[in-house]
Amino acid sequence: MQRVAVVSYGLTKFRRSNDSLYLIAAESMRDLFKNVNGFSQDYVDAVLVSTCDNAQYTASILSEMLGIKPKIAHRIENMCNSGSNALISAYSYIASGLCDIVMVVGVEKADSPSVKLEWDLTRGQFTHPAHWAAMFSKAHMNEYGTTEEQMAMVSVKNHKNAMMNPMAYFHTKISINDVLRSKPIVKPVKLYDCSMPCDGAASLLLVSEKRVKEFTDQPVWITGIGQKTTCASFSNVKELTKMDSTILAARDAYTMAKIEPKIIDIVEVHDAFTICEILAYEDLGFVDKGKGGRFAESIDNENINVNTRGGLIGTGHPIGATGVAQAAEVVMQLQNKAGNRQIKNCKNGLVHNMSAAATSATVVTMGV
Amino acid sequence: MQRVAVVSYGLTKFRRSNDSLYLIAAESMRDLFKNVNGFSQDYVDAVLVSTCDNAQYTASILSEMLGIKPKIAHRIENMCNSGSNALISAYSYIASGLCDIVMVVGVEKADSPSVKLEWDLTRGQFTHPAHWAAMFSKAHMNEYGTTEEQMAMVSVKNHKNAMMNPMAYFHTKISINDVLRSKPIVKPVKLYDCSMPCDGAASLLLVSEKRVKEFTDQPVWITGIGQKTTCASFSNVKELTKMDSTILAARDAYTMAKIEPKIIDIVEVHDAFTICEILAYEDLGFVDKGKGGRFAESIDNENINVNTRGGLIGTGHPIGATGVAQAAEVVMQLQNKAGNRQIKNCKNGLVHNMSAAATSATVVTMGV
Repeated sequence: MQRVAVVSYGLTKFRRSNDSLYLIAAESMRDLFKNVNGFSQDYVDAVLVSTCDNAQYTASILSEMLGIKPKIAHRIENMCNSGSNALISAYSYIASGLCDIVMVVGVEKADSPSVKLEWDLTRGQFTHPAHWAAMFSKAHMNEYGTTEEQMAMVSVKNHKNAMMNPMAYFHTKISINDVLRSKPIVKPVKLYDCSMPCDGAASLLLVSEKRVKEFTDQPVWITGIGQKTTCASFSNVKELTKMDSTILAARDAYTMAKIEPKIIDIVEVHDAFTICEILAYEDLGFVDKGKGGRFAESIDNENINVNTRGGLIGTGHPIGATGVAQAAEVVMQLQNKAGNRQIKNCKNGLVHNMSAAATSATVVTMGV
Repeated sequence: MQRVAVVSYGLTKFRRSNDSLYLIAAESMRDLFKNVNGFSQDYVDAVLVSTCDNAQYTASILSEMLGIKPKIAHRIENMCNSGSNALISAYSYIASGLCDIVMVVGVEKADSPSVKLEWDLTRGQFTHPAHWAAMFSKAHMNEYGTTEEQMAMVSVKNHKNAMMNPMAYFHTKISINDVLRSKPIVKPVKLYDCSMPCDGAASLLLVSEKRVKEFTDQPVWITGIGQKTTCASFSNVKELTKMDSTILAARDAYTMAKIEPKIIDIVEVHDAFTICEILAYEDLGFVDKGKGGRFAESIDNENINVNTRGGLIGTGHPIGATGVAQAAEVVMQLQNKAGNRQIKNCKNGLVHNMSAAATSATVVTMGV
């Protein structure tokens, strides 16, 4: 089995705009072309597009727009977890020998149909994700004494990180008090505890081991992959103090990579809400169950860097693009290209992407 | 690299109904469960759903409905070519070692958003696929003398075959004159030259070589895979007497399988319109360029069996389900389970699935 590397990435500014889905996606693809020395569209065997938009035939249309005539082209959707599904399909197409060079494009508009969970009749009128986030938050507060201040610290950190990311939607320094006093959404979730849907795109170029030297001397190898769908409806989420799909996906990714969480230097976690980042600290194995709130207080002194681009909360959440943009950040850090937010001596990274009240999740580990 | 087999299939009656997308998909999944001895949902590593429907999170929802907790679950769309994209992704997930057992589910409602090509502004008001079919038909008639009668023969054959397929939408014997006198759509395309969108679903179970004996003693091996997207817009289709994407996909599939087209016993071609089947005879290499019309006259005496289930024209065209249902027919014939339409001594089969004026195509070969 040959190894698979991510060799480069392309990004757009995350924003709210009148630009079309196609234009935004193409912007990230052109950025990718520019980032790869001697790039040629003729190389590309597959174009996999991650989006929750209703646009049909998107992968073929974007291929035509950008002058690519791929073998494989299709659109992939699994709500907020779409981007990492596309990443893993790209891995599979290369590892199976069907392709050598695959482009992954994640794109979304702010008014994506995935913003609400209207298919889940068990939620009644509570189709906005803030409802499940509130229930997770309350459960963790009741069980482990996690506080609203600790959750606020996640938002403060991610907004602070986003200030060093020119592509982020938000560039606003906020305080714990700003979060605590922000608009109540669903108790105890307040506005600054939430990520915000926006426009944006991100692209990745994945290459087989045998072709990798043509493109970079800094390949970022995919070392571990784990995914799990436990259910789809919120009524089937039995435990609110942990995210089973993340726990199982992480276990499989660490097993495949033959690593332990303590060696991870840089991680992008799916902070759709602040409580999700606190749960992720625990469920990815960086800290014991129940200690995520206190970890949020001390994270500046820990041996791990979480959501250096600003996370979903600071960067914005263009749904189908998020998993791809998370992976792009890890690649950027591992290639030592993250500019003024570069973490020193990054060797191992992790991407955590998930959907719909943590009913499905992906964990991908990468290393140099 | 381990081999990948299709071990079984599940089908629904193709119909027009008030049944939901989920109910129709689940029906084909339950049929698959029933067709596999000792099937357990616990085995399933991935659920890949092919559909052009706008329903979000479909793969996770269907997994929950059917009691499956897969690792990988997502929706795949590439218009009419979606089903075979899902099939090839399933192959990749197994061949790459990420999965051992993958379920592919293709499903569509008759009112699918993919019925029209509204994204292609170069088509002006001519968004219905019958417009490009008319242009392909006229070009082939002008260049090679293909006749409306020869095209009608394709429809007569496929309707005749559909009469032996209990799952087909149509069970009506028609004559050449019936086709020629049917309602004019876009000259020279008439109603009986067209396939019809309908409701329907089809499922497949793909298994790795090391696990295959648990499920069947009649594995159908995937031997060759070819895919190509040449463009998306009709204005970029330069030649109307051949389907370049099919020619290129077939070349790659035959190369991978190390076979020649003459050894194929059974083939499902994408007869969205009668002209497509005539072009497919040529572009898949069963007959020289230009001789497809005459081949349609003599096909009962040829060493190949085309569209034994009735094709899209006789069976109906539930868009995301079509590629999966085509593959199910080939598997059924190769497993000698096709009942009163069983072809004797079937050893090698081929699936040809495509999209949007043949701008993309898939060819998959299978053997026992």
